Amino acid sequence: MNPPDFGGPAGDNATDQVDRLIALLAKLPGMGRRSARRAALKLLRDPGGLMLPLADAMRSTAEAVRPCRICGNLDTTDPCRICTSPSRDQDVLCVVEGVADLWALERARVHRGLYHVLGGVLSAISGVGPEDLRIEALLARVGAGEIGEVILALPATVDGATTAHYLHDRLRSSGVVVTRLAQGVPMGGALDVMDDGTLAAALKARRPA
Amino acid sequence: MNPPDFGGPAGDNATDQVDRLIALLAKLPGMGRRSARRAALKLLRDPGGLMLPLADAMRSTAEAVRPCRICGNLDTTDPCRICTSPSRDQDVLCVVEGVADLWALERARVHRGLYHVLGGVLSAISGVGPEDLRIEALLARVGAGEIGEVILALPATVDGATTAHYLHDRLRSSGVVVTRLAQGVPMGGALDVMDDGTLAAALKARRPA
Ligand SMILES: [Zn+2]
Ligand SMILES: [Zn+2]
Repeated sequence: MNPPDFGGPAGDNATDQVDRLIALLAKLPGMGRRSARRAALKLLRDPGGLMLPLADAMRSTAEAVRPCRICGNLDTTDPCRICTSPSRDQDVLCVVEGVADLWALERARVHRGLYHVLGGVLSAISGVGPEDLRIEALLARVGAGEIGEVILALPATVDGATTAHYLHDRLRSSGVVVTRLAQGVPMGGALDVMDDGTLAAALKARRPA
Repeated sequence: MNPPDFGGPAGDNATDQVDRLIALLAKLPGMGRRSARRAALKLLRDPGGLMLPLADAMRSTAEAVRPCRICGNLDTTDPCRICTSPSRDQDVLCVVEGVADLWALERARVHRGLYHVLGGVLSAISGVGPEDLRIEALLARVGAGEIGEVILALPATVDGATTAHYLHDRLRSSGVVVTRLAQGVPMGGALDVMDDGTLAAALKARRPA
């Protein structure tokens, strides 16, 4: 598809600027070239209404929010507020694929322990190996001795199950109890689309891995 | 749906900032709450890759781009480069619903005259009347006497047809030739999703309104 052409001389600023905005918007998940154009137009129609607040929110969030060095969560403090909270159970560690899953579990308010964000799952097809995930950091946390249970809250996919098996093997020698989410998570389902009740039931009925 | 809860004290900054970012992203066309969350996570994972460039593009575009006082196009100059271009036909005026349609026609490179952006179409259901559109400005431009033909390039919808009829009536006394896009634009079709060939054919075969 061609960029918008304002009919001016080659390389004019409006084309360049609006094109660049559209190209960047099109990189957002769920956005195509066409919806990016519609979004750019909506933004341009009333810059003060959405475009400037959004630009400010992105800049301030980019400056303030970073990954937690302990668990991989995103927060304005490092270590994050979950890792440093005195009210969370320090001996139960919930392992998730990504921050979206951590957010889903927090929204459901079903886990009061700590988290560990793997940053993905093992995948032969995508070439994701153990060294690509935060697995050594997980083993180090568990090896430090304060964790009594590791909950593997991984997606109910082939790659998720492979990863759960792999982690269970690696954690066996540590003596920690390893559990996984109960049946109730539908096959192939991503955690972050499930309703709170399903998440709560699956977590409550968790069983040894 | 609940906001992400980082488990920290009430009103903590990470929740507020990320929530605000998600809420603003969700206002973009085509974005839902879930895709806004996914977009926020993608942005937060590598702020320098997309979030900061996008914030900068939005801010600089917001500061640079504004509506043309003559035609309603969006450009970094006012009047816009189309209105001030010596190479465009000054006597053919193409009336479109919105800037998206102007961009579509420019991408197709099928109209070498000027434009007039109405800012919508008449709609009894949505309560859009003539006073809500840039119709007086259109009549004033045509009344100034340099326009020989007005092309009504409006959507092939009931509201588009109503608007075309209304404009044809209002333009009758001016003596200007009023045409509309030929059949070839499918019923109910928005101009900005059509391929260049369809737009070119419809424009070339335009006939009196
Ligand atoms: Zn943390
Ligand atoms: Zn203009």
